[in-house]
Order: sequence, then C-alpha cells, then structure tokens
Amino acid sequence: MNDFIFYNPDKVYFGKNQLGHLSEELLNFGKKVLLVYGGGSIKRNGLYDSIVKIAKESGIELFELSGVEPNPRHSTVNKGAAICKEKNIDVVLAAGGGSTIDCAKGIAAAALTENGDVWPLVSGGVWVTKALPVVAILTNAATGSEMDAWAVISNMKTNEKIGLGGSALIPQAAFENPEYSYTLPSYQTACGAFDIFNHVLDNYYLAGGATFDLILEMQEAVMRTVVKWAPVAMKEPKNYEARANLMWASSMALNAILDGGTVHGCACHAMEHELSAYYDITHGHGLAIVAPRWLTYILNETNAPAIYRLGTNVFGVEKGLNAMDGAKKAIDALSDFCFGTLGLLPTLTDLKIDKTHFKAMAEHACMGGVITGPMELRPEDVEKIYEMCL
Amino acid sequence: MNDFIFYNPDKVYFGKNQLGHLSEELLNFGKKVLLVYGGGSIKRNGLYDSIVKIAKESGIELFELSGVEPNPRHSTVNKGAAICKEKNIDVVLAAGGGSTIDCAKGIAAAALTENGDVWPLVSGGVWVTKALPVVAILTNAATGSEMDAWAVISNMKTNEKIGLGGSALIPQAAFENPEYSYTLPSYQTACGAFDIFNHVLDNYYLAGGATFDLILEMQEAVMRTVVKWAPVAMKEPKNYEARANLMWASSMALNAILDGGTVHGCACHAMEHELSAYYDITHGHGLAIVAPRWLTYILNETNAPAIYRLGTNVFGVEKGLNAMDGAKKAIDALSDFCFGTLGLLPTLTDLKIDKTHFKAMAEHACMGGVITGPMELRPEDVEKIYEMCL
Repeated sequence: MNDFIFYNPDKVYFGKNQLGHLSEELLNFGKKVLLVYGGGSIKRNGLYDSIVKIAKESGIELFELSGVEPNPRHSTVNKGAAICKEKNIDVVLAAGGGSTIDCAKGIAAAALTENGDVWPLVSGGVWVTKALPVVAILTNAATGSEMDAWAVISNMKTNEKIGLGGSALIPQAAFENPEYSYTLPSYQTACGAFDIFNHVLDNYYLAGGATFDLILEMQEAVMRTVVKWAPVAMKEPKNYEARANLMWASSMALNAILDGGTVHGCACHAMEHELSAYYDITHGHGLAIVAPRWLTYILNETNAPAIYRLGTNVFGVEKGLNAMDGAKKAIDALSDFCFGTLGLLPTLTDLKIDKTHFKAMAEHACMGGVITGPMELRPEDVEKIYEMCL
Repeated sequence: MNDFIFYNPDKVYFGKNQLGHLSEELLNFGKKVLLVYGGGSIKRNGLYDSIVKIAKESGIELFELSGVEPNPRHSTVNKGAAICKEKNIDVVLAAGGGSTIDCAKGIAAAALTENGDVWPLVSGGVWVTKALPVVAILTNAATGSEMDAWAVISNMKTNEKIGLGGSALIPQAAFENPEYSYTLPSYQTACGAFDIFNHVLDNYYLAGGATFDLILEMQEAVMRTVVKWAPVAMKEPKNYEARANLMWASSMALNAILDGGTVHGCACHAMEHELSAYYDITHGHGLAIVAPRWLTYILNETNAPAIYRLGTNVFGVEKGLNAMDGAKKAIDALSDFCFGTLGLLPTLTDLKIDKTHFKAMAEHACMGGVITGPMELRPEDVEKIYEMCL
C-alpha cells in the first residue's frame, strides 16, 4: 500500500434544483465569463436559456465558444484561450459532457500562457498549477472531468490524443443535474457508462500482494452500480434514479477517492486514446472493445485471483473455482456486459478499423516507454492487444 | 433522493512518510501554532518530538495545550481559546484522536469570538463559518473529525455533550499515519471501530422508498471493511493493513462522501452522547450497546427490507428469507459483531449505569423535539430504548 495525498476542493451541487447557486459561484471569480459548449444540445434542453437568464440577472457578461468536438481539438482550445486573453475573462464555464469540460480546462490553462497555445503544455506533459478558474455544468455521465484534475485534448494533424493534468484544472464548482442527461441516446449512455466503469477498472488493483481493501471495496461498489443502472438508463432514459447513480458514479470514479494507496493505472485509456486519435471513434466504445482483450492478455497466475475477485464481486461469477478458471469467467462476464448488456459492437473490424496503423499507434501509446499498470506493456504488447480486438 | 452539495477541501496526507509536509501546511497560515494534545501518548510514541523538531527547523513558534480529555470539556476549549487570543495564534494543530481534534476545532471557533467562550456557540447551535485554521495529526481511527465539519464538546456541569458544526471547522489538512495507532489498546481499537461503523449505520437509508444505490453500496463497502479489519487490528495491533483500512474508513465515514442524497441521521449518536455526558463512558462502547436495541425498536414492515439488506451485504446473512426474519437475523449479526467479535460488554448494567437519569437523558437527547432518522424518536421512545440496554 502506497502513501497518498487526497485533495479535491471541487464543490459539487448535485440534483434537480441547484442552478440557483451558479451566479454565486461564478461571481466568486469575476463578472466576465466564457461559456463553452458543444453542438447545441444545451439549446434544445433549455440549459442555455437558463444560463443566459442567470447571467443577465446577476450582471455577468457572457462570452461564448460553441462547437466543441466530441474529442476536443487543440485548435478549438486555442480559440477559447484567445477570447480569454482578448476579453480578460475571469472564469471559464463549461456546459456539456466531458469533452466540453476538457476543452474548458485546456482553455483555462492556455489563457495564462504567453502565446495562448495549449499544445506545448499537452505534448510537454506540463503539470498545470496556474489556470483560470473553471466551473462545470455536466450533462453526460462519463469522463469524470467535472471533478478531476485532467483534460484530454486531441491534435488531429498529428493524430495525438493526450491527457493534460494539473491541480489547477480541478473545477472550482460543478453542477450535476441528472435530468440534463435524459436526452442522451442509448448508445451514448452505454459508452459513457463504460467509460466510468473503465476508469475504475484501470485503477483496480490487479497486481496481487498487499492491497487496500477499503479502496477495492469502494471500487467494486462503483462498478456494481454502473453494471446495475446503465441498462436501466438505456431502456428508460428519463429514469432519475438511474441517471443519478451513473452521474455520481462518474464523479466518484475519478475524483481520487478510489485512488488511495493504489498505483493510478490507465492501460486501457492509453490504448484507446490512440483509437480515438486515429479514427475519432467514441471513447467509451473503444474502451469496451479493448478492456476484455487487455485482461485476457495480461492474465497470469499472479493477477488471476484479483481478476476472479472482480468477477465474483462485480458480476456475480460463482465462488469456489480455481483462480485461473474464475478469472476467465470474470473476463467473459465483462464481455457479456460490454457487448450484450450495453449492446456495443464487439470488434474494431465492426468500426471499420484495420491493422494499418497498429504499429504506429502502439508506439504512440507507450510514449517512448511502457504503459504502467498490473503488467508493463511495451509497444509489441499493445500491438498484439489491438490485433486481438479485430 | 435529495439534492445535495458535496464540498470537502481538507487535504489529507495518508501514510508512513508524510510528516515532512507538516511545516508547509502550517506556514500557509502563519508561524504561531497552538499544539493541542491529550494525555501524553504522543510523547511516548515520538510524535511530539517530531513536531517540536519540525517547528524548530521551520521557524515555527509552538505554544501548547495538553491534557485534553477523552470527552473534551468546554472549559479546556476555553483555556485554548484564551492562549490563542493572548498569543495571536495563527493556526491550531491537533495531535491525537477525535477528542483532541474536536477540542482544537472548538478552540479555533472560540478564539474568534469576543469573549473566547465556546459554550454559547455549542448550546446555541451556531453554524461556525469563521474560525482559526485547524491542522490535524490523527492517532486513532474513530470519530472522523480529521475530515469532517463537526466537533463534540462536553459540559460536565450541565451534563451536556453537544455537537458543534460549521464549514470553518473542516481541517485545512490532516495527517493520517496508521502507525500512530499501533499503540492503541484492543478496547480502544474496538470502540473506535464501532464509532466508524455507527457513523455509517446512522446514515444508512432505512426508511424505504427511493434510494441512492451508489451511496448504499459505498456505505456497505465501508461497513464491511470495519467488520473485516477491526478484529485483525485488535489481535495484531501493528498490522499496517488493518490500521490503514480502519483509519481511512474513519475519514470516509464522515467526510460527506457517503451522505449524498440521504438524510443525515444521527439517532444512535444522539442517544449515546447522553450516556457519555452523564457517565463519561467511552463513546464507541455506548454506541455498540445502543445500536442493536435501536434497530430492534424501530424495526417494522417498512424498514425491514433495508435492515435485511444491511445484514446480507455487510454480515453475510443468508438470502431468501422474508424481510422481517432477515432483518432480525441482521440485528443478531450486528450484536454478535459488537459483543462477540469486538468483545464489548453488552449492557448498560455492565457499565454500572441504571435507569436513574433515563428520563432526563431522553429529554436532553431530543432537545425539545424529536430525533430524526428512519423513525422519529420522541423522549418516551428514547427512554424505552435505554431500558432495552439494561
């Protein structure tokens, strides 16, 4: 068990009637607000109008950047940073899903650099300790960006999708109203749910040896919640209980409360980011294809008991098997969840992806070294895992 | 499911080698530090010497208040507040268990009042939004004070033990080294463990109806952890894994992460505080005596399924029973845990408490109204529950 520091000062307003607190949170930082959003779903569901009304009533001057992409581009981030510089923005307000919040975080960081370009921060792996304050209104349970210190930014010119981290990127406040996710289609709900699940799985302690039982217990609690409520939300998109469980699970999965004493892993995420960077596929879908193959590839005598525990405690796999058989059943159960319950197409071939770029993607994913986790992955390992996904 | 706000900016340094961060945390607030501690166990285990050395090396001027009682007195709090006023203290540093941290919080609040008296704040139910900053070094997994917004202060003249709450009472930083709890005797370990367990139980959703499944899952995860690791820590006091699981469970139980969407209940705590106020018994022991009787008293058709769920998910009670039978088995399992596993004496009679003050205590516990929770308790209910504890 490793020493750890837990610090998450994000103030979360969760529930149906919390937007009344928006102006007080924004005015903590000033009156000039850059509103960042995506394709306009917030215009359809009334959130945009609510924000404009609140701003007007509170003397807040609202500037806008719309059209944030599902995998937000560094060029979009830089547009936002330019607005911040030109208009002396005090606080960046994201209204949308994880991509929108990530974009807002990138803007907040780039706005305080000299040239307003986010890419040197991203590609240089800079830990951001200085940024404009970010406030987030979440409309999609998935990435955990509403309560974490990370943003993922894509550069489509160079086929790169990379995480930007920093204590200054934790939102100052987040508004989570499960009702905002009512309009999410079944496919997006499934992809978001698996993103949540995978954030926990990537951190789940699979390496054997001394563990932090409380953390494992809480990780399994969050994964069980996703397994239980994702199919409900897919069938009944306006089921508040289902949407609320998924939304708070999204925040729990990455707010560091489940990290204590573990080595923060991100094997599946590292491999999937390449898929999205090269083919712009939906992140959660890519993860669902990769995750069962990753577990199959790394399965060995050392990690079999932990994978089996995951199976019994999250998917109800029967107890009393030998560890290796149990672990295989656990991986089968995970596949059933991804491709049966969530209904996601099971192969990269289904997504029209072939092995053309696997070698380059595998090199990229390892960033000149290895992917850490329960088993270190070299480019040749990653390439093999991609091949298993065909 | 209710709307909720989650906000906990406490920065926790957890593990064996974190005290190197103490000076930076203290110096955030200034150089004049009031060190608050209890009976001297920190002198025996070396923590006191470490603090003095760190202070000396960092130019910190250390003042001291020692002798904090297990149920900290308002008079002791006021002594500390007087030192703060006289010496212009910048930050209050607690080193000890929950009582010491509670005392430090009371001092921090009282120091900023005109007359330096904490009792009007406590008895008036004031929500404290202004206090000196508190930094805590935890040596005993129990009360959760290291990461919550509460302090419990006793007035032995009036036989009152009352909670003082406020956002300003959340420690700015907390240091949790499980090794500091190695010297804790088995009885104190058991009492601390049950205090943790009961913080979750008091909040566990027993009222039936719509629930927040994720929160229930996480609550059960924390309770299972206590049930598993408390007996290990009692038998092997220097088992790091056991001490670490209990210590982080202590923080999880009250840092509000398990509160989301629930009604924060405190039925057992309200009833036990009277026992400690009148008889100065160990808080966790009093709770263990009260809790199974409370569940027995409130058990009805509405809450039976939830109590049964607690039994199956936390104590492994068999599935498939009817709810009422299952709930009774759950309460039996809880009693076995308290009086078997933890080895606590099972009745108030064992602690030389008779019914002399039950009526007055019951009135006190209800504070002129009712104790809220899964079933509202009036003074006559509380008196009956006390009688069941004889």
